[in-house]
Amino acid sequence: MILALDAMGGDKAPDINVEGAILAVKQSDDDILLVGKQDILYAQLDKWSKKYSFDKSRIRVVNATEIIEMGEHPANAARHKKDSSMAVCCKLVAAKQADAFISMGNSGAAMATSLLYFKRISGISRPAISISFPTISGRCTIVDAGANVDCKPEHLLQFAIMGDIYSKSVLGVKNPKVAILSIGEEETKGNELVFETSKLLKQTDLNFIGNIEGGDIPKAKADVVVCDGFVGNVFLKSSEGIAEMILKLIKNSIKANPLYWGATPFLKLAMKSVRKKADYDEAGGAPLLGVNSTCIIGHGKSNSKAVKNALFAASRCAKKNISNIIEEEIKKFQN
Amino acid sequence: MILALDAMGGDKAPDINVEGAILAVKQSDDDILLVGKQDILYAQLDKWSKKYSFDKSRIRVVNATEIIEMGEHPANAARHKKDSSMAVCCKLVAAKQADAFISMGNSGAAMATSLLYFKRISGISRPAISISFPTISGRCTIVDAGANVDCKPEHLLQFAIMGDIYSKSVLGVKNPKVAILSIGEEETKGNELVFETSKLLKQTDLNFIGNIEGGDIPKAKADVVVCDGFVGNVFLKSSEGIAEMILKLIKNSIKANPLYWGATPFLKLAMKSVRKKADYDEAGGAPLLGVNSTCIIGHGKSNSKAVKNALFAASRCAKKNISNIIEEEIKKFQN
Repeated sequence: MILALDAMGGDKAPDINVEGAILAVKQSDDDILLVGKQDILYAQLDKWSKKYSFDKSRIRVVNATEIIEMGEHPANAARHKKDSSMAVCCKLVAAKQADAFISMGNSGAAMATSLLYFKRISGISRPAISISFPTISGRCTIVDAGANVDCKPEHLLQFAIMGDIYSKSVLGVKNPKVAILSIGEEETKGNELVFETSKLLKQTDLNFIGNIEGGDIPKAKADVVVCDGFVGNVFLKSSEGIAEMILKLIKNSIKANPLYWGATPFLKLAMKSVRKKADYDEAGGAPLLGVNSTCIIGHGKSNSKAVKNALFAASRCAKKNISNIIEEEIKKFQN
Repeated sequence: MILALDAMGGDKAPDINVEGAILAVKQSDDDILLVGKQDILYAQLDKWSKKYSFDKSRIRVVNATEIIEMGEHPANAARHKKDSSMAVCCKLVAAKQADAFISMGNSGAAMATSLLYFKRISGISRPAISISFPTISGRCTIVDAGANVDCKPEHLLQFAIMGDIYSKSVLGVKNPKVAILSIGEEETKGNELVFETSKLLKQTDLNFIGNIEGGDIPKAKADVVVCDGFVGNVFLKSSEGIAEMILKLIKNSIKANPLYWGATPFLKLAMKSVRKKADYDEAGGAPLLGVNSTCIIGHGKSNSKAVKNALFAASRCAKKNISNIIEEEIKKFQN
């Protein structure tokens, strides 16, 4: 696979993007196009090649003269900056010179640019962000994690179909259990959107198990959870905050009491393994499902490991040809 | 204060309700009316008086022949079971024979019964549940935590006014920072409900600080957070689930590695103190703000400590005369 990486996007760009790309080529067969200001990127490659030995022919620089900043208005930036690193990535993919577009930059702009150059899959009303959320025993696919803040039941139905395909094709889950995020397991609990979407989901061939509470997601009660992007994003960000608070409270409690100090070295190791399990960097990035190509959107705070894992995720999605499968399934569904 | 406790509501009723009532009278000046099937409750008081010594004149049994079960339809149960333990509690309060109604039972039914007998405060469109959520340094008031699943901006505005009053009057917070739960701190991030509500909040005298992300609630960035009851309830239940998962992951990681076993006793102590801090039982129950009396709704899973703390919360709210303050403030606001 040839992966087009927006080398200029993200809080620590271009450094960690270039390092992530090098780590990825060392551990995979994929080639990478580093897209951004060429002088800066050549200098970066020089810098990192002192630290890492890698096959230089597998990372190529493609020049892009503009950068979309984190605070910019997504749609405007996508429309007007025709030579941004994001736009050039998408043009490479659209021209079949690359198989996937990956960005850690302004996520709204990455979505808008993908939509502009890749277009929606025929039959899909709204592309959605799909997150692999850590559970006690694996990962749960949550769609939508923030692309669409005001949704209709038809949109959530499509999110469910796309999430099901992603879970099966990319994560290898057999007959994924699909649930809708609500405020109680009983069918009578929820809001209008939940009630109406449930009616639609019951009419599909999906393995729909009904409502799920947010607290049951980490318990691995479902493989795919659908929700409005506002609710999904609140869930996601809250979870990060709560996890941080718990770890901090444990740390503070140990610090405050000399009796517990004996636990510190053990606890550090244990927490490291917890962090690894619950770690965003492990997933690396989230696919934008519903556009006619592979687009992976990463966290602005990504480190080089997250960039590497986002590149791996892009490669998996592109190999499985997720967007083609979605197009076929949506067609079948509409017939 | 005289507190009317629904002795039959909750997963472990009436046992833990009666024990909780005894613990409360031992630690406060309040009297308690235990409302429910009198034969059962007299037997319960007999049983617990073998374990605890307490002033028996301060707990009186009031008979109620019906029970509202956990699975019952809230509005129907409230309307038709005129002699349920909930209905009798509310009638006592409405007749000024008690100062507050407390239930660990079917929370929808507790709300519906309160609404039926207490009525809404004039000017309030929708009563809302207010939760005291633990933060790294104290507690944050979240309104609405689940009473209203499909809200309009005017409703959220009223939640903010009520949450502000609760935070000031009951929790003693000076000039509480009021925020709206959203998916980014920037003013441009959110859904229609967030945008429209923000416009209204800016026109008030509240100390409105704008958007807050769910992950910033535990960081104590706001004192009062308003949201739609669906989103609030997802936040609440997700937080509980995530906290449990993190504690379980740490436990598993320690179990799996004999190198960490030395940490177990220290860690157990540390976790106990974390659980205490983040513990639902500490708050005990959540006030239903916006009705013409004090109503405290607890978790069905409450233990006797949670019941005791719910009774304390009821006493605090009744003493401060929260519903009168809300009525006056809403009037002022409307003028």
